[in-house]
Amino acid sequence: MALLSINWQPDKQVATPIYQQITNYFQEQIAKGNWAVGAKLPAQRKLAEQFGVNRSTLITALDELMAVGLITSNPGSGMVISGNHWSSLLAEHVNWSQYVKAGQFKPNSHALQKINQFETDAVIRLSTGEPAPEQFPRPLFQRAFAHLGEQLTSLNYTEPAGILALRQQIARHLEKVGIHTHPENILITSGSLQALQLVSMSLFPKDATIYTEAPTYVKSLHVFQSAHTHLAGIPMDSQGLAYWQMNAPTQGHHAILYTIPTFNNPTGIVMSAERRQQVLQTAQEHRLPILEDAAYQDVWFDQQPPQPLKALDKTGNVIYFGSISKSLAPGLRIGWTVAAKPVIDRLTDVRMQTDYGASSLSQLVLAEILADPEYETYQADFRSVLTKKAAAAEQILHHYWDDFATWQTPTGGFYLWVRLADNINIPKLFDLATAHNVLFNPGSIYDFQPNQYIRLSFSYESSDRFEQGIKILTDLIHANFNV
Amino acid sequence: MALLSINWQPDKQVATPIYQQITNYFQEQIAKGNWAVGAKLPAQRKLAEQFGVNRSTLITALDELMAVGLITSNPGSGMVISGNHWSSLLAEHVNWSQYVKAGQFKPNSHALQKINQFETDAVIRLSTGEPAPEQFPRPLFQRAFAHLGEQLTSLNYTEPAGILALRQQIARHLEKVGIHTHPENILITSGSLQALQLVSMSLFPKDATIYTEAPTYVKSLHVFQSAHTHLAGIPMDSQGLAYWQMNAPTQGHHAILYTIPTFNNPTGIVMSAERRQQVLQTAQEHRLPILEDAAYQDVWFDQQPPQPLKALDKTGNVIYFGSISKSLAPGLRIGWTVAAKPVIDRLTDVRMQTDYGASSLSQLVLAEILADPEYETYQADFRSVLTKKAAAAEQILHHYWDDFATWQTPTGGFYLWVRLADNINIPKLFDLATAHNVLFNPGSIYDFQPNQYIRLSFSYESSDRFEQGIKILTDLIHANFNV
Repeated sequence: MALLSINWQPDKQVATPIYQQITNYFQEQIAKGNWAVGAKLPAQRKLAEQFGVNRSTLITALDELMAVGLITSNPGSGMVISGNHWSSLLAEHVNWSQYVKAGQFKPNSHALQKINQFETDAVIRLSTGEPAPEQFPRPLFQRAFAHLGEQLTSLNYTEPAGILALRQQIARHLEKVGIHTHPENILITSGSLQALQLVSMSLFPKDATIYTEAPTYVKSLHVFQSAHTHLAGIPMDSQGLAYWQMNAPTQGHHAILYTIPTFNNPTGIVMSAERRQQVLQTAQEHRLPILEDAAYQDVWFDQQPPQPLKALDKTGNVIYFGSISKSLAPGLRIGWTVAAKPVIDRLTDVRMQTDYGASSLSQLVLAEILADPEYETYQADFRSVLTKKAAAAEQILHHYWDDFATWQTPTGGFYLWVRLADNINIPKLFDLATAHNVLFNPGSIYDFQPNQYIRLSFSYESSDRFEQGIKILTDLIHANFNV
Repeated sequence: MALLSINWQPDKQVATPIYQQITNYFQEQIAKGNWAVGAKLPAQRKLAEQFGVNRSTLITALDELMAVGLITSNPGSGMVISGNHWSSLLAEHVNWSQYVKAGQFKPNSHALQKINQFETDAVIRLSTGEPAPEQFPRPLFQRAFAHLGEQLTSLNYTEPAGILALRQQIARHLEKVGIHTHPENILITSGSLQALQLVSMSLFPKDATIYTEAPTYVKSLHVFQSAHTHLAGIPMDSQGLAYWQMNAPTQGHHAILYTIPTFNNPTGIVMSAERRQQVLQTAQEHRLPILEDAAYQDVWFDQQPPQPLKALDKTGNVIYFGSISKSLAPGLRIGWTVAAKPVIDRLTDVRMQTDYGASSLSQLVLAEILADPEYETYQADFRSVLTKKAAAAEQILHHYWDDFATWQTPTGGFYLWVRLADNINIPKLFDLATAHNVLFNPGSIYDFQPNQYIRLSFSYESSDRFEQGIKILTDLIHANFNV
C-alpha cells in the first residue's frame, strides 16, 4: 500500500486545539477521497515531526481518529486509513456539500464559527443579526420560569399548529400592527427559516418565479433555490420595491412575490404606505400571491412603520411571517405564519412530517412573556437602546469613513448598508478582517450581482466594540487600498 | 353565476364547534376546487336551514370566511366564493396532500386530533407514544428553571451542533450504555424525526434500498419514502432481525440498514446480544451502513437490554439516534445523533439551512436536568411505574381478550403488540373505536402488508383508563364480530 505524503501543518495562531486541527484535517482528506482506504500512515515519530507537534498531541489525535473508525492500527503494518461506509457515502454527495457551502460565502466561515465558540470576546461580530446580550430581559424570563414551575403538569407534544395560548397571544400582539386574525390562522414554526422551508416545500409550483427585492436576505439562503424555482431580483427605490419592473406572468406560468417591506434586510429600506397599496393592487391584478417577511416589524426607532401588507390584505392573498428572534431571543426558535386556514392546514400537515412541532417549552415561555404587562416596557426600552446604538454607529462611520463610504440613515432594524469606494476590494477586505477577528457580511451574498456594499450590524456589539471593529477595518482599508 | 347546491350538515355529536365545522367545510370545498371562484351562495336564511343551524352560528362562520378572503359580499349579488391565489395553488398540490395524508391512516384522524384539543378527557388514547402526565418530574424542571433564571445572560443562536454543555451531558449519559463518544460526535436535533429527515436528505444515495425490520415504526412515516429510495422489510424472529434474509447488495447498488434493535416499535422485540454481533458482522462484510434508532433505550422494565450496536461498533459504521421524548418529555423536542465527525459535520451543515438549530431553552433545560443527581432516581421511578402499568395492561387483556387475542409480554417500551382473531375486521374496529372515543393504532400502518395486529400503548393512560378503553373495545368486538 502507498505511504501517504503529507505537507500540511496545524495553525498555532487560531483557537482550535492542535489535536483537533489534526483530526479535522484527516477527516477532510478522507471525506474528500484524497486519501484512499488502505493507504498507510508514516510512523508516529515522522508524523509528529512533519506536523511540528509533540508526540502526545499527535497520539491524542490518532486515538480519536481510531475511535471513530477513520484509521486502524494493524500489527506489523502500522496505521492505515480505514474510513467507514458512511464516509464513502459522504464522498459521493459532493454536490450537496457544495449546495450547503455556497450559502456561507467563504469556506472558512465554519472555522470562524468554531473560533467564536472558544473566544467570543476576541471576535468583533458586526455580522450577526442577534440582539445584544445586554438587552436580554432576564426578569421577564425569570417570571415566566417561576410561573411555569408552578403550573406545568406535563411537557408532551402540542397541538400540531402550536400551543393555543401562544397563538392567542400572537393574535393579540398582531392587533397592534393592524392585523386582525384568529389562532386558527396561525402556525407556530421553529423560527421563520422553517416557515420559508415549509412554504417552499408545500406551496411552490414547479418552475415558479419568485420575485423579490434586490438585494434581499433570502438570496443569502438556499431555501427557495431548489432546482425548480427561480429567484428574480427587482430593484428598489426609496419607497421600496419597484413593482412595475416585474414581468407580467405569462399563461400557465406561476409567480410569487417574496418581500421584506419593513426594514428590508440588508438595506433597511421601508416600503411606503402608498407603495404597499400599489403592490397589493398589482399582485391582485396579476394573481400574484405574496409572502411578507416581517422579521423586523417590531424593531423601529422613532416612528412605527406603515402597516404590514397583511393588515391591508382583504383577500387572504398575503402569507405573513413573524418572528421573536429579532425583538426578544433567537434561541427560543419561534416564528409564526399567518395565512388563510387551508394554507395553515397544509403547512401544519407538512410540518408534522418534519419535526412534530416546535419546543413546547419555548412556546410556553413565550406565551407567558407576551402576556406579561412588562413586555411592552421591555419593547420600548429595547427600541430606545437600539435607536441610540444606531445613531452612535452612524457617528462612528462619519468619523472614520466619510472619505470612502456612503449609506442611508436607517429608521429601524439592525443594520447599516454601506457602500464602499470602488477601489476597495470587498472579498479581500473580508479575508483581512476575519484574520483580524472582525466579522462583517459582504453585500454580494444578498444580491443578484456583485456589488460594493457591506452590511454592518450595530445590534449585537456595544457601541465601544463597534468603534473598535471600525477602527480595525479603517486601518486595514488604509493599509491595503488606495483611498 | 351558478348558485351552489349544498347537501352537507355539521355533526352535532363531535366537539368541534358548529361554526368551525362550517368554515372547515367551506375551506375544503374551495381548496379542492369543488366550488369555483365566483360561485354564488344561497341566501343566509336558506343556508342556515340547509345546515340545520341557527342564523347567528351561520353568521359567525361567514364572518370568518370573509375575514380570510374566501367569500366576499357583493352589494346586489349577495355572497360569492372569492378564493385567493394561495387556495388555487393549494388545489394544484393535491399529490403532496395525499402524500401527507397517507401517513395518518384515516383522513379523520386530523379531526380526532382536534377533538383531543377540546376534550382530552373524553378520548382514551391507547394510541400515543407519550409518557403519562402523572410521571412528569416537575421538581426536576423547577430546579432547572430556578437555576437558569439566575444564570441566563442571553438566549441567542447556539453552536450549530447544539449547546456544548448538553452534548457533554449526553456523552456522559451514553457512557452508561457502553457508548464512548465525544461532544464533537454528537448533533442535537429537534427530536429524532428531524434526525431521520436530515440523514435521508443528506446521506441517502439515489435508488438506495433501506432494509428495516418488518413491522417498523419508520414505515408509518414518510421520511424515508422519497421517490428515490426503497424500503425493504425484513422479518424478525424472537432474537430480532432475520439478517440473513437481506439480499446481498449488487455492484453499484447502495443499501442501508435502519433498525430499532431495542424494544422495536411496534413489536417490542429486543435483538439479542448474539444477533447484534452477527448483524454488525454482516453489515461490515456487505459494506452496509447502519442507522440505529434507540428511542426506547432507557425504557426497560426489570433488566437493562443488551448494549446498543453503536457500543459494539469499531469502525464508525453505525449512526445512533437517541431521544429524550420517551424517557422524559417529548415537548422538549430534543434528540441526538452520534456518528463519525464528517457525518456530523455534514448533517449539521444541512440542519443549519433548515431551521438554525433546536430551541436553546430546551437544550439548556435538558442539560440542567441530565446533570441533576436526582435524574437517576427519576429514571428508576419512571421505569418502575411503567413496569407496573405494563403488567396491569397485560392482566386486563387476559381478563377480557384471552378468547380472541394473543401477544408477547414486553420487557420494555410503551406498547403491547396484539394479534386479533381473523374474523375481527381491524379497519372497521378502528372506525367504531374512534366513534366511541377510543384511539389505538392499527398494525398495518407499521407493516409492509396488511396484518391482524393492533398496537396498544399502556404508557400514557392510567391503568384504570386503559381498562375502560379495553372494555369499550371488548363490547364493540362482541357486538360486531363473530368471536
